[in-house]
Amino acid sequence: MANKFTIGLVQMKCTANSDENLARAIEKIREAAAGGAQIICMHELFHGEYFCRTEDAELFNLAEAVPGPTTEKLAQIAKEKKVVLVVSLFERRAPGVYHNTCAVLDADGSFLGKYRKMHIPDDPLYYEKFYFTPGDLGFPNFQTRYAKIGVQICWDQWYPEGSRITALSGAEVIFYPTSIGWHSHEKAQLGAAQLDAWRTIQRSHAIANGVYAAVVNRVGFEGKPEKGDPGLEFWGNSFVADPFGQIVSQAADNKEEILVVECDPAKSEDTRRNWPFLRDRRIDAYTPILNRWLDRE
Amino acid sequence: MANKFTIGLVQMKCTANSDENLARAIEKIREAAAGGAQIICMHELFHGEYFCRTEDAELFNLAEAVPGPTTEKLAQIAKEKKVVLVVSLFERRAPGVYHNTCAVLDADGSFLGKYRKMHIPDDPLYYEKFYFTPGDLGFPNFQTRYAKIGVQICWDQWYPEGSRITALSGAEVIFYPTSIGWHSHEKAQLGAAQLDAWRTIQRSHAIANGVYAAVVNRVGFEGKPEKGDPGLEFWGNSFVADPFGQIVSQAADNKEEILVVECDPAKSEDTRRNWPFLRDRRIDAYTPILNRWLDRE
Repeated sequence: MANKFTIGLVQMKCTANSDENLARAIEKIREAAAGGAQIICMHELFHGEYFCRTEDAELFNLAEAVPGPTTEKLAQIAKEKKVVLVVSLFERRAPGVYHNTCAVLDADGSFLGKYRKMHIPDDPLYYEKFYFTPGDLGFPNFQTRYAKIGVQICWDQWYPEGSRITALSGAEVIFYPTSIGWHSHEKAQLGAAQLDAWRTIQRSHAIANGVYAAVVNRVGFEGKPEKGDPGLEFWGNSFVADPFGQIVSQAADNKEEILVVECDPAKSEDTRRNWPFLRDRRIDAYTPILNRWLDRE
Repeated sequence: MANKFTIGLVQMKCTANSDENLARAIEKIREAAAGGAQIICMHELFHGEYFCRTEDAELFNLAEAVPGPTTEKLAQIAKEKKVVLVVSLFERRAPGVYHNTCAVLDADGSFLGKYRKMHIPDDPLYYEKFYFTPGDLGFPNFQTRYAKIGVQICWDQWYPEGSRITALSGAEVIFYPTSIGWHSHEKAQLGAAQLDAWRTIQRSHAIANGVYAAVVNRVGFEGKPEKGDPGLEFWGNSFVADPFGQIVSQAADNKEEILVVECDPAKSEDTRRNWPFLRDRRIDAYTPILNRWLDRE
């Protein structure tokens, strides 16, 4: 049976100053490590503000190679503190090919690999299809020093297929680095239901697959309403769900927080033995799921 | 845009007397119809007690043809009240081939078709693999007079794949006829988490697919603990979730109830426009989901 391991979720605010964000992130990684965290995950695109609120070709300049300058800096702290880091970055792969990518650094600072966001949204103030080429690395796992992990980035979190495939490769925990928030004109009417749906769909991945789900969301308001940029209120609420979907740790919606949670692979196996969903999957009958829509039925 | 339609969920207790159960079911169908329900769903195997608590070859005698005697009786009330009926039955298909099947009768009493439970559980007191041959009809839809519907029976409800495929065929609502309950020795420690996981996974299907989810569970205690049959306390809690997963109607855990809920296909389309998950599915990358386990990653 695999060993227990401890994860750390850093929920933080970001400014337009990327150096400052990175310095603060490193500070918080140290804090999480001091609290016992062995695998630490940042929220989506923690290096800056959530820039997809507008479509501006200049902003491609924010992208960098992965591995590259940021992972090199982070590798130092990973090695120093012997922590695995799961860090979401804007990847410049080639001129004109940019990805929303998550790098995984092992506890010796080595670059273990990356996941490129597979499902790319496009909604008002979340104009991601302008920036991000859809991922082409599938749904990989990463065997880190402390546990086997998977990653699903933000919009991916709404797709049971992605989490299922990630879990079927043996991930003991799936991390969901996220930047999701409320539109100010919607919050009063729809905000509670949106947050609830978001929490529910991710808890459901834990339940369906018997894995830990670790969701790390951005917090804080970004935008300048007085200058015509209505902005987004990122709703935090980072959480960890156990392999039966129960929330075992939960952050607030309006402040920075660090969650440190011990995960026990035995809990996952126990859940899967008592509610053995994986045993009974009808893999002979799932082919229609590969269709966009089933018009002919 | 499709018309609104009204569904009725009959949450009832059952005894070992199948004639009595059927008579009471018909009474409740009349009551639901009088309340405005146009599509009425019974819980799983409503014709009798949940007999899978033991493995007894004599109990195969409970099975019947579908269509057959019970659907013929129910067709009369369907026609009389102009209601669609979604009724779960123990199907005798051939000597040695029995299914857990749901028949769909249209509002003129005609037999529209059937769904055979695809995922068959086997757990203490739920010895279904002894009785039920896994379904071989895939995940069909049924175009009824009032709406296009899909069915997933009990254990199916834990599989995102089944609900996804059902929704991709255009179902406006997915019915989940169910017989799930607490083991008396587990209830105090695990009961709340079990109920919560059950509700969460089904709400997640509504969210992931932007469809109504209508869950009809058995209620009442069945068993004779004093005679060594520990029994099951079926937990009721039938509910309807809207296409964003919000629960719009909910029954108690300990009594018979009828839920009548109006469903609006416009709500489904509105949800899918604002949170357009179906648009961004990576059908080019989901093939690994057809595997039992991904050993080689």
